[in-house]
Amino acid sequence: MRRWLLPESIEDLLPAEARQVEHLRRGLLDEFALHGYELVAPPLVEYIESLLTGSGRDMDLRTFKLVDQLSGRTMGLRADITPQVARIDSHLLNRNGVVRLCYCGPVVHALPAGFNATREPIQLGAELYGHAGIEADLEMVQLLLRALEVAGVQPARIDFGHVGVFRALAARLQSPALRVEDGQQELFVALQSKDLPSLRQLLADEPAEVRDAFLALPGLYGTSDVLARARSLLPDLPEVRAALDALERIAAAVDPAVAGFDLADLRGYHYHSGVSFAAYCAGQAQAIALGGRYDEVGLAFGRARPATGFSLDLRQLAQLAPAVAPRAGILAPSSGDAALRARVSALRAEGEIVITALPGHDEDMQELACSRQLVFVEGEWQVKPLERKV
Amino acid sequence: MRRWLLPESIEDLLPAEARQVEHLRRGLLDEFALHGYELVAPPLVEYIESLLTGSGRDMDLRTFKLVDQLSGRTMGLRADITPQVARIDSHLLNRNGVVRLCYCGPVVHALPAGFNATREPIQLGAELYGHAGIEADLEMVQLLLRALEVAGVQPARIDFGHVGVFRALAARLQSPALRVEDGQQELFVALQSKDLPSLRQLLADEPAEVRDAFLALPGLYGTSDVLARARSLLPDLPEVRAALDALERIAAAVDPAVAGFDLADLRGYHYHSGVSFAAYCAGQAQAIALGGRYDEVGLAFGRARPATGFSLDLRQLAQLAPAVAPRAGILAPSSGDAALRARVSALRAEGEIVITALPGHDEDMQELACSRQLVFVEGEWQVKPLERKV
Repeated sequence: MRRWLLPESIEDLLPAEARQVEHLRRGLLDEFALHGYELVAPPLVEYIESLLTGSGRDMDLRTFKLVDQLSGRTMGLRADITPQVARIDSHLLNRNGVVRLCYCGPVVHALPAGFNATREPIQLGAELYGHAGIEADLEMVQLLLRALEVAGVQPARIDFGHVGVFRALAARLQSPALRVEDGQQELFVALQSKDLPSLRQLLADEPAEVRDAFLALPGLYGTSDVLARARSLLPDLPEVRAALDALERIAAAVDPAVAGFDLADLRGYHYHSGVSFAAYCAGQAQAIALGGRYDEVGLAFGRARPATGFSLDLRQLAQLAPAVAPRAGILAPSSGDAALRARVSALRAEGEIVITALPGHDEDMQELACSRQLVFVEGEWQVKPLERKV
Repeated sequence: MRRWLLPESIEDLLPAEARQVEHLRRGLLDEFALHGYELVAPPLVEYIESLLTGSGRDMDLRTFKLVDQLSGRTMGLRADITPQVARIDSHLLNRNGVVRLCYCGPVVHALPAGFNATREPIQLGAELYGHAGIEADLEMVQLLLRALEVAGVQPARIDFGHVGVFRALAARLQSPALRVEDGQQELFVALQSKDLPSLRQLLADEPAEVRDAFLALPGLYGTSDVLARARSLLPDLPEVRAALDALERIAAAVDPAVAGFDLADLRGYHYHSGVSFAAYCAGQAQAIALGGRYDEVGLAFGRARPATGFSLDLRQLAQLAPAVAPRAGILAPSSGDAALRARVSALRAEGEIVITALPGHDEDMQELACSRQLVFVEGEWQVKPLERKV
């Protein structure tokens, strides 16, 4: 039994990575604050009914369950912070107008979300409540782009989707098997995996217009021409038209070199209700940020409010962002000398790292990452280059 | 079923408190960094054997257990970060000399640690490994005092104890019942609660010297005269003498107005091995910070290293620290106007909070905490005081 081994897909953040994550955490939360987003921090555990509000079966399977010894009820270890923040907007802040919130904290997945995925992402995100108009979606996309800029990470592509297209088509399905939750789940899985043979089979008994529209969705993927193709291939339903108009407007706010579309992307299907978006970086199969509208989530808390937002995993972002170099310190002798202590305090007040050389560790001093030292010269403590023993 | 209710002793951090906690988190981690402490972040869950290393039954009862679906093994939701950081020092950093680490993150207690205690403290702490001398203990006490100063919190008292006194006396116990773990646990509980009748009963068969020494411990509590009284009341054993010398030396580094002693304080008994300390604030029964030496913890990870450190709960500290006022923002109209967007970016780059007034929310604009607004005057966007509608 090697007690220092961690469970699979669970990792420590050691100093170099922790420094990087902390740097990004501060940079992004500060940027959110400059846009009026207020920080909140919901708890790691809460009752399972609150935690799984509006989320799908995936999230249920991904959430560790715990028995609360005080109440005997089932709690969950959060696998997603978004529903918690919706709860805070719905019930605790009690505001009528637009509310902007942001958050950053660890979440735990009982099962990894994908190949090579960590089971303990550090979820950082921003949410905007109370505004149903496209201006809110636009603000979120622009905030995400700004966040990536602050992080020093260049997005290769921002893909937009709209769950309204799927919902409008699903509402026209005829066969009883597809009009229930389980049937739609099957359709959803086939669409997500762009599995045309299964789609054809599932939709065999549907009217041609609906079947052809569903079969067209997996192909409606790519850059600027997607919307034009969608308008000609999909039935001219009011909800479909509204969705495509919204996508056109929001994509216009993004550099055309990175804007893309994926009308079969239904990742947040369970709680999304409008425009959704995903940011990708070169060489990364997994999206680095996911966002979208989810107006229905607050309903479970008794107060449905328009909502849109995005989140990302700081561990993943930290691997893509430029490295933050450690700062070299100044070595100070271990002594109670008052002049030395005053000098050390003054140097720290100027932002210098000053590390005390505890007695008896001369041989391991190079581990301390210092480039200079405090030496007593001509009656005062002076900062001098550190001379390494050879 | 009200889904927005949280479990007992579990709380959200809403904006005002979250701002306060974030401010303290950054201030304290930055101060630790200036002293050479490197940030690490161990995971929320790991195998129970690693998590409960060297800790007592209390910590076991306080730790939520989970079954890892990938390995079938039992994991724990951490209730304490200290053993995790000891694991990092022992095995992952692989350094020979002095290692200074700090951390900040949430922990979860299955049962609250005391009356009115939260079940989800935000543990922040610093640890120093690799130095057995008193200089390390001194550095930790001074770092704690500095941290409280940075937080703007005045300690009313720092109480010092030394588990070596209890250990030296316990080694002299004669009755078989008290020479086993369970018996010592009973003795320990009686001492902690200063329960003299139980102590007398437990120690009835012991030699007078040992019995009298144990019975004296609960009274060895107070300020500067405690050490002198201890030297006269306790047997003159080498370990007792060494412990009292260490306490004398460390207390000398602290303002005598706040230094105190409590030789029956054995809170960290299970893993502590030397000087321990607790900081108290006026009007707070619970200590605001606990620390001490715990040289044995690394042993379970195969590499025992001298270790000392302290930790505190940021939620508790945030209640005692001076409030951090929110900054008032600037309201900007929702518009794609290029000149406006440039001005907004420039203001944010100067550190101003600029909040977009999304259309249709005029009546709720006062919720946005803005004192100024951007208006187009004489051909340019200017910041003007915000005129409230009456």
